[in-house]
Amino acid sequence: MAKLLGKLHEEKVFKDPVHRYIHVRDELIWRLIGTREFQRLRRIRQLGTTYLTFHGAEHSRFSHSLGVYEITRRIIDIFQEKKTWDPEKRLLVLSAALLHDVGHGPFSHSFEKVFGVDHEEFSRDIILGDTEVHRVLLQMGEDFPVQVAEVIAKTHRDKLIVSLISSQIDADRMDYLLRDAYFTGVSYGNFDIERILRVMRPTEDGVVIKSSGMHAVEDYIMSRYQMYWQVYFHPVTRSAEVILSKILHRAKELYETGYTFKRELSHFKTLFDGNVSLHDYISLDEGVIHYYFQDWMEEEDSILSDLCHRFIDRKLFKYTEMVSFTDGHLLSSYFTEAGINPKYYLVVDSSSDLPYDFYRPGEKEERLPINLLKPNGDIRELSRESDVVEAISGKRRTDHKLYYPLDLIEAIEDITLKSKIKEILNR
Amino acid sequence: MAKLLGKLHEEKVFKDPVHRYIHVRDELIWRLIGTREFQRLRRIRQLGTTYLTFHGAEHSRFSHSLGVYEITRRIIDIFQEKKTWDPEKRLLVLSAALLHDVGHGPFSHSFEKVFGVDHEEFSRDIILGDTEVHRVLLQMGEDFPVQVAEVIAKTHRDKLIVSLISSQIDADRMDYLLRDAYFTGVSYGNFDIERILRVMRPTEDGVVIKSSGMHAVEDYIMSRYQMYWQVYFHPVTRSAEVILSKILHRAKELYETGYTFKRELSHFKTLFDGNVSLHDYISLDEGVIHYYFQDWMEEEDSILSDLCHRFIDRKLFKYTEMVSFTDGHLLSSYFTEAGINPKYYLVVDSSSDLPYDFYRPGEKEERLPINLLKPNGDIRELSRESDVVEAISGKRRTDHKLYYPLDLIEAIEDITLKSKIKEILNR
Amino acid sequence: MAKLLGKLHEEKVFKDPVHRYIHVRDELIWRLIGTREFQRLRRIRQLGTTYLTFHGAEHSRFSHSLGVYEITRRIIDIFQEKKTWDPEKRLLVLSAALLHDVGHGPFSHSFEKVFGVDHEEFSRDIILGDTEVHRVLLQMGEDFPVQVAEVIAKTHRDKLIVSLISSQIDADRMDYLLRDAYFTGVSYGNFDIERILRVMRPTEDGVVIKSSGMHAVEDYIMSRYQMYWQVYFHPVTRSAEVILSKILHRAKELYETGYTFKRELSHFKTLFDGNVSLHDYISLDEGVIHYYFQDWMEEEDSILSDLCHRFIDRKLFKYTEMVSFTDGHLLSSYFTEAGINPKYYLVVDSSSDLPYDFYRPGEKEERLPINLLKPNGDIRELSRESDVVEAISGKRRTDHKLYYPLDLIEAIEDITLKSKIKEILNR
Amino acid sequence: MAKLLGKLHEEKVFKDPVHRYIHVRDELIWRLIGTREFQRLRRIRQLGTTYLTFHGAEHSRFSHSLGVYEITRRIIDIFQEKKTWDPEKRLLVLSAALLHDVGHGPFSHSFEKVFGVDHEEFSRDIILGDTEVHRVLLQMGEDFPVQVAEVIAKTHRDKLIVSLISSQIDADRMDYLLRDAYFTGVSYGNFDIERILRVMRPTEDGVVIKSSGMHAVEDYIMSRYQMYWQVYFHPVTRSAEVILSKILHRAKELYETGYTFKRELSHFKTLFDGNVSLHDYISLDEGVIHYYFQDWMEEEDSILSDLCHRFIDRKLFKYTEMVSFTDGHLLSSYFTEAGINPKYYLVVDSSSDLPYDFYRPGEKEERLPINLLKPNGDIRELSRESDVVEAISGKRRTDHKLYYPLDLIEAIEDITLKSKIKEILNR
Repeated sequence: MAKLLGKLHEEKVFKDPVHRYIHVRDELIWRLIGTREFQRLRRIRQLGTTYLTFHGAEHSRFSHSLGVYEITRRIIDIFQEKKTWDPEKRLLVLSAALLHDVGHGPFSHSFEKVFGVDHEEFSRDIILGDTEVHRVLLQMGEDFPVQVAEVIAKTHRDKLIVSLISSQIDADRMDYLLRDAYFTGVSYGNFDIERILRVMRPTEDGVVIKSSGMHAVEDYIMSRYQMYWQVYFHPVTRSAEVILSKILHRAKELYETGYTFKRELSHFKTLFDGNVSLHDYISLDEGVIHYYFQDWMEEEDSILSDLCHRFIDRKLFKYTEMVSFTDGHLLSSYFTEAGINPKYYLVVDSSSDLPYDFYRPGEKEERLPINLLKPNGDIRELSRESDVVEAISGKRRTDHKLYYPLDLIEAIEDITLKSKIKEILNR
Repeated sequence: MAKLLGKLHEEKVFKDPVHRYIHVRDELIWRLIGTREFQRLRRIRQLGTTYLTFHGAEHSRFSHSLGVYEITRRIIDIFQEKKTWDPEKRLLVLSAALLHDVGHGPFSHSFEKVFGVDHEEFSRDIILGDTEVHRVLLQMGEDFPVQVAEVIAKTHRDKLIVSLISSQIDADRMDYLLRDAYFTGVSYGNFDIERILRVMRPTEDGVVIKSSGMHAVEDYIMSRYQMYWQVYFHPVTRSAEVILSKILHRAKELYETGYTFKRELSHFKTLFDGNVSLHDYISLDEGVIHYYFQDWMEEEDSILSDLCHRFIDRKLFKYTEMVSFTDGHLLSSYFTEAGINPKYYLVVDSSSDLPYDFYRPGEKEERLPINLLKPNGDIRELSRESDVVEAISGKRRTDHKLYYPLDLIEAIEDITLKSKIKEILNR
Repeated sequence: MAKLLGKLHEEKVFKDPVHRYIHVRDELIWRLIGTREFQRLRRIRQLGTTYLTFHGAEHSRFSHSLGVYEITRRIIDIFQEKKTWDPEKRLLVLSAALLHDVGHGPFSHSFEKVFGVDHEEFSRDIILGDTEVHRVLLQMGEDFPVQVAEVIAKTHRDKLIVSLISSQIDADRMDYLLRDAYFTGVSYGNFDIERILRVMRPTEDGVVIKSSGMHAVEDYIMSRYQMYWQVYFHPVTRSAEVILSKILHRAKELYETGYTFKRELSHFKTLFDGNVSLHDYISLDEGVIHYYFQDWMEEEDSILSDLCHRFIDRKLFKYTEMVSFTDGHLLSSYFTEAGINPKYYLVVDSSSDLPYDFYRPGEKEERLPINLLKPNGDIRELSRESDVVEAISGKRRTDHKLYYPLDLIEAIEDITLKSKIKEILNR
Repeated sequence: MAKLLGKLHEEKVFKDPVHRYIHVRDELIWRLIGTREFQRLRRIRQLGTTYLTFHGAEHSRFSHSLGVYEITRRIIDIFQEKKTWDPEKRLLVLSAALLHDVGHGPFSHSFEKVFGVDHEEFSRDIILGDTEVHRVLLQMGEDFPVQVAEVIAKTHRDKLIVSLISSQIDADRMDYLLRDAYFTGVSYGNFDIERILRVMRPTEDGVVIKSSGMHAVEDYIMSRYQMYWQVYFHPVTRSAEVILSKILHRAKELYETGYTFKRELSHFKTLFDGNVSLHDYISLDEGVIHYYFQDWMEEEDSILSDLCHRFIDRKLFKYTEMVSFTDGHLLSSYFTEAGINPKYYLVVDSSSDLPYDFYRPGEKEERLPINLLKPNGDIRELSRESDVVEAISGKRRTDHKLYYPLDLIEAIEDITLKSKIKEILNR
């Protein structure tokens, strides 16, 4: 089957604050961006609840997806200029780059944990199902959608292509570090992406980095390290995330125990039932979630209504360092005694649960590590060459915090009970 | 009545990409930020539909409001350092700066035009009504909320205070130019705000600018000029705005003619009836609007459903330069003949209708112009001193465009009719 | 004769703060950069005495020359990508871009005025004479050096090539605005160069700009306007320039009247005699000038020694707005009476004398104006389309200032005489 | 004795690209900046020969000194605002900050090694000797110059003051990292200085950092690490430094062995004799050095003339990784055989010799380490709290390189000899 989509008559550009301009030269890419499934990413924030900590972090997955596409495009252009790349693969990689997050829903992390859904599955469904995206991809050949899906799923046989989209230094990570730093306004996320792109070299087993560019890569790894702990794992963001999870848990529990909601649950019903359809899933976005949460603020169930109020009006839980099991057990019973349900109001959150990973070669399910290409042709894994990277790559760092509603505790009338609770929390 | 709120024990900061940090030292300001009415501004984009043209423009009125507060705080700090300012006025100005946009709803411009509501009235209602904002303000004295409302309404007797919030070079404009430039990624919006703040001088009649800073102010005016035409009046943004207005018109028309909507209209009902309450108004945000529009995509009425689909999936109208009355009349009848309702699908939009103004001293309803303070103490209005400003200040520039759905036209089966329409549009 | 220099085995890059990286792919360019005549530009500041006003302005003509080369390279790459450019011309333009300032000496403006030398002539001599630059150029063909010289002299028959290096919006101007803004730290010089490069189109008569890019060009013109008045014509810079000129005048006068200098004048001798050789000229740089000025601080002649001390230790003249002829005449006689030689210590400087020009189409000796390419193929000169540009393009603005040594005036013992002088200066 | 210098009538500002503006409010500071000894710093580059690698690095010690002053001023302003600082100490610290580098000569590192001079001694001499700086300082009290000198020499009894100027995280280091990064254009040097200034707390034993700011400090340490290896120890810069040292060595050797220089050696004579006076020292600047080197290009001695030519025209030595002693010995004898003097043309350079240090608490002559202030009041040294810092703080990293003139080797006529040399160098 012939490829029906060629070059655009005239290049299109998007103004982008991170990459200055995003350049689109291919009809295929232009049409993919125009599909409703891709446009939907405008309604899903890239960083979930982070905007409640860093108010600038209001950017969407739409912007990020364009950015990943653009970085990939630049890498390929450099490869093609050096004649080290097969031009036939170009559109496959670009499509995968653009669509790698297309299955993301609102606040993915919490939704996936509570409802057992998986954005990677939805990405696959959107690419292969009855969608505008699928129909556009099909113009490039009957096999094309499957190939795109395989690249995103990391099962494609061409390891080089996969490594551009998913490795320890792929276009995805490079874009989100730069973009999240730009929008939050923190200075940590910067690294010299132009230099990194210039020292990338394609090999059969994936992209490697010329060792002369090691320092630029060290800087990138350090940026990641700082961004994770300063932004992604920020305890206030996690407080909002904790409340969000508890809202979903509570609503599901109520549904399962036959509670009658004031308003119909259309979007949520299939989620609760565990059989959400692609159509329903696609119609979910952050606006819809906010709509329901605002609605639920008026529900009879005081836990659901209180939690929704907290999320919408940003009355978050406070946190403290993790307490001992004994203290935790005590707190839990004190809470119950005070009429505060500890299941929803006393929450341990551990940051290493979050879907971000440091650079950890050697662990299972690892991503392709960063390999340096020495002048003599040898390949050496980065952490064996760099002291700094070695220092942070071995150590899984977890941070356990205990979240609780300070306002409810302050409102406890039994002075003794209140002081016992506060004594433990301030220990 | 005593002022109950003093200095914070420890200064709080917000990381802000435009001003680096936003500093809060006053308990009053801290509590105002925490109110639900202020937090609601997180759910309303600063630039309405602009994100459909510049994908980075996803920032909210929340961020902007913090920015206006911060600029005002810096101006006052400089005034106080020079002992040219009465410290008693400080919290009044800062509150007004923070709250100046608190009455804004989603896509204000279109909503106000279609439903006759007015965000300035809602600002007043939020400040004086039964709200968290009002209760916090009341802590500063019984008279305090009224005074804040007056400053925002520009009716306060202290012209200096008013000029900080509303003039041709106020904290509001300075923040939005810098912020909108930052988030869209265009380079035009930059000017040397530090310099401008340093050459501001308070007078009884408002802020004036030391004439040695004229060039910095020229640069600010040119930034505005460029931002208006490059960003705010961008024809693609206006296409989305046109569709949005037509959705609201259509839904209202359907409601008024007794059409039965599939889903209840709770939020919209009072808007349609023209008696929206403060409570209903506050619950409106962009998420809610998006929710309804997605719902309406499934309505029976094909116009409403088509327009909602266009807005949500970004299938916008194309545009052309304005045509003659004769041609417009012809087009309208051709459209009708082709079964395309010209009332909703053939729309003239003029940019000078939009709520942005150039710098036009001498027109009625003018804002306080920019006055330069000469070394000899004379005051001269800017456009009399600056060639560049003079050049652009006199001329009202309007831009009329005609919007239409190219896809529907392409789908017209009557070849002759179609070609007659296209001939006029491409003339 | 064959072209002996081809592509480099591997691209070379220079880290550049303005353009991020400067890319060199051609052996020819690489070798030209390595010549002693080009390396000499490291020892000549781009902005002459401006560093005495803006301390960051310490950057050299070397950096600027690389920048002009890089911008030209990017323009050509875009042209070649669009197949609208003859690749044969590439190295000619790039060489001319790189070498356009190679004839500049230290503080060119003053030197040229006092000694009647001309940097354009020296550029020609360096390109065509017995130099490393010439020998490298010769590798590209016997005719090549002459062609490069012609492009720089604007006499080359290919108007397109000339327009890239010398027009109202050439690579030279674009680099110096961005670079001078970067190093001084002022915000005015920024404009969207990426956008401008993308809307440039080659024609036989020179580069034109697609009219859709008009706003970016307006912004560039406004940047120029601001940079001229805020940076290039800054009165403090001109004070240093005035003193510099007077030093050269005085030394020349002394030489011509047979004064015996303590130290030999080797570098200056031929300048004074009006027959400076290329060899002598090339050995002049700012270090040499500083060396002599420091030496001359110890000369017997009190005027020469005082002026050198002022220049080296930055004890500049103060300035006032220009006075009337009558007052000037009076001042001059008062100065003489007070023993201060007015020829050296009472100096009128007019900024429109400086070698910068606004955008003034229609004047003689004009540079190629900026032409806009309309969608219908028409060409329209910029100031006919843009209000803002029209506003500033017609008006020659001159600024006359009177410079004088306040310290010497303060030291006048005759109280009456002193007060008469100060009365006029403070009028 | 009374303090004669007070506040300026009106604040003065310098435009600075790194800190936006530098603010001067004190007559004392304003006058110090105007002294000839301070103005002289304009003629000495901050980064010595680095401009031959990074062409943007043309900034002077003058700019850096203003920057150190400005950072110190901001720290003190924050301290004073929090009432944690004795205002009496203000001008002492600011003067020391401004003058900390005033004794630096051109290319200090090489000059100090070759001639045994010490810029710290000259700083002291300038502050206490017969200079304009001294006379200005004296206006603040008879004891004031000595105190300033003691702060700079780190012998002052007030450890807090000393720590602001000299510690592992002092104003000096913070300015040079930001400034050198800005002017070279590398991205590595950035860190969040505003955050660091806000978490600094004064104690009797020096400044400490609130532990909540640890990540910002980690980022600062990583910036240093990257800047040292990417910029300060760049092998090309060291090549120029090697040649510079060898020029000085050769000239001194010639002088000591009675060689007759064509031109008189005035500035250098006392340096060669080892008894340079303050007056001579002050007249030395990079212009003077360049003047002599250009002169010496025409000397009879072929080694001196060749090395000067290399330095001026940037025909640097190539380098390779260090070779074994055996190979080094062999190379040396081959060089001699080929008529190339290995003493001047075969040079080992080790970067750990350079006057930059990592963060190494516990070594002798250490600077005050970075101490974190925990919420409970404990003080902990940074590397005990931070994995990343711990990783790099223990390890002294040295880099040995061997420098040689490739062009001379290529010109060896004895093919066998040449190939033996090249074989070792390319091993």
